[in-house]
Amino acid sequence: MLVQETMLLVPASEMQSAFSRILLKHGFTGDKAEKCAAIFTASSVDGVYTHGVNRFPRFIEYVLNNYVKPGAEPFFKHRAGCIEQWDGNFGPGPLNATFATERAMELARESGMGCVTLSNTNHWMRAGTYGWQAAKKGFAYIGFTNTIANMPAWGAKDKRLGNNPLVIALPYKDEAIVLDMAMSQYSFGALELAKMKNEKLSVGGGFDKEGNLTKDPASIIESGRLLPVGFWKGAGLSLMLDMLAALLSGGLSTHEISRKEAEYSSQVFIAIDISKLGNQSTIPVLLENIIRDYHQSVAIDKESRIVYPGERILETRRRNLEQGIPVLRQVWDAIMQL
Amino acid sequence: MLVQETMLLVPASEMQSAFSRILLKHGFTGDKAEKCAAIFTASSVDGVYTHGVNRFPRFIEYVLNNYVKPGAEPFFKHRAGCIEQWDGNFGPGPLNATFATERAMELARESGMGCVTLSNTNHWMRAGTYGWQAAKKGFAYIGFTNTIANMPAWGAKDKRLGNNPLVIALPYKDEAIVLDMAMSQYSFGALELAKMKNEKLSVGGGFDKEGNLTKDPASIIESGRLLPVGFWKGAGLSLMLDMLAALLSGGLSTHEISRKEAEYSSQVFIAIDISKLGNQSTIPVLLENIIRDYHQSVAIDKESRIVYPGERILETRRRNLEQGIPVLRQVWDAIMQL
Repeated sequence: MLVQETMLLVPASEMQSAFSRILLKHGFTGDKAEKCAAIFTASSVDGVYTHGVNRFPRFIEYVLNNYVKPGAEPFFKHRAGCIEQWDGNFGPGPLNATFATERAMELARESGMGCVTLSNTNHWMRAGTYGWQAAKKGFAYIGFTNTIANMPAWGAKDKRLGNNPLVIALPYKDEAIVLDMAMSQYSFGALELAKMKNEKLSVGGGFDKEGNLTKDPASIIESGRLLPVGFWKGAGLSLMLDMLAALLSGGLSTHEISRKEAEYSSQVFIAIDISKLGNQSTIPVLLENIIRDYHQSVAIDKESRIVYPGERILETRRRNLEQGIPVLRQVWDAIMQL
Repeated sequence: MLVQETMLLVPASEMQSAFSRILLKHGFTGDKAEKCAAIFTASSVDGVYTHGVNRFPRFIEYVLNNYVKPGAEPFFKHRAGCIEQWDGNFGPGPLNATFATERAMELARESGMGCVTLSNTNHWMRAGTYGWQAAKKGFAYIGFTNTIANMPAWGAKDKRLGNNPLVIALPYKDEAIVLDMAMSQYSFGALELAKMKNEKLSVGGGFDKEGNLTKDPASIIESGRLLPVGFWKGAGLSLMLDMLAALLSGGLSTHEISRKEAEYSSQVFIAIDISKLGNQSTIPVLLENIIRDYHQSVAIDKESRIVYPGERILETRRRNLEQGIPVLRQVWDAIMQL
């Protein structure tokens, strides 16, 4: 473990063992501790620290508060053809979501396409996790969740919409192309980080108290008026995803989740078995041709790189696996106390 | 028909009869002329003039050029469980898409969820048409198409991405909630209209030649650098929708469509039969509660109204059915010559 003033570089294996040990101490049984530790570590390896190592202490806090029930497993509610509705039973979000993704793939193997929904589940952490899971197994994947209200409707001041992440994933070569897109232009975590570093945002990320679009993270945190992706468009998409998630799962919607003690979400997992399509043999070439054309884009300047969703993650993953995962010393110290 | 200087108010029935008559003259048989005329009229009634009455002359031009083949019908290619792949056979886009939506609903009645894809189909005109079609019959609907390249990738100058509209629709009361969202912040048509009226855009809609984000429509038309919804996020979503559409349909992708004489798209239609869900009896109340909470948003000022996707359309529809559809005199005159 290398030391660089306030940052440590923690090897992935060491991180995973630590997480696993802590989870075992907090009521997770062997297999569940392993799986959960692997997911938190993989998100950290991929550079999504906000939902990996940096989030781990809060996850344990939720276990201690009994919001996340370590031993709870999802239970079956209803089947309608290739759709299954499950209750998440307030179990660990990442484990419930991994199960639902796996089950959606099983249904897709039977029916071409499968949809699994979860009600009463905890925060799934990094949304993209389940896109990578399905795409690496050769499935196309569409998934989304609702969240607590953290963004105003278009034309409004108060928070009534969730940032409701949407994930679309496809297998690509031996890896995947994974879009992991929340409906706010910036996450609250990204705003806080920019404020801490005293940096401006690269594009307008919300409104200040006077209603002006601003790149100043502190003003946006103060007003609470995060900008939806594409202004009115992302606000509309957020509302639709909340309605779809609640309707398809029979679970809570954003306005209901916001009144609970923890973020008990409704989630949707759709998998498509592309090996069953008539054109399945031509798909690898089709995707390669699209990406080749995309990469031939003329960059606006020397600093700009044209990357597809998930492309940078592959680089971060390689670097973090080689050099270790960068973690703030104070974060790692706190984890060691858990 | 009322006359207001350069605008006419055309009753919907009169518009539909005119369209139908013109289509019959151009090789459409009775039923197809009727259906196609009804779709162009309904889009105009709903205020989507760009893909209704204003687009009709170009549609006829495409028929005359044999890009749109009036008598061609989609043919079946492949079935994989609840997914069906059809070839659009270069038939009229709105008729192909209506058929695909209908078929997706039939598959959903069998399997809970159904997916129909179309390759080699013509422009479906207003994307939302098929969302309204499915939602009014009680289905949840997700649909999208790819388009010609009309937007640069994030960090690029040249157009490699389509604006690839995405539609999500749900039944609501006796009507529907329909999100119809292209991946560019503004359509090219909206930019041209604002330029013509010498108006600024309400938010940044693209970049000028120097790479500055601007609200000036003329500068964006000059540079060709339309802004993706949510900057890098909408650019990523556009790429994913293109890949999904081409992959699932076995049709052309944006870079291929852009080299053809007309916009031969790949399209995806997903219907979910919500009457088969375990919680189906509670859905109306669930949606009403979400919309009630949403409507309780505190507006930023007296001019702002908090509306859900499709809510304004209901008002426009009512007004246009009562008063007639506003059409530029020169547009209507041109149609009368077809």
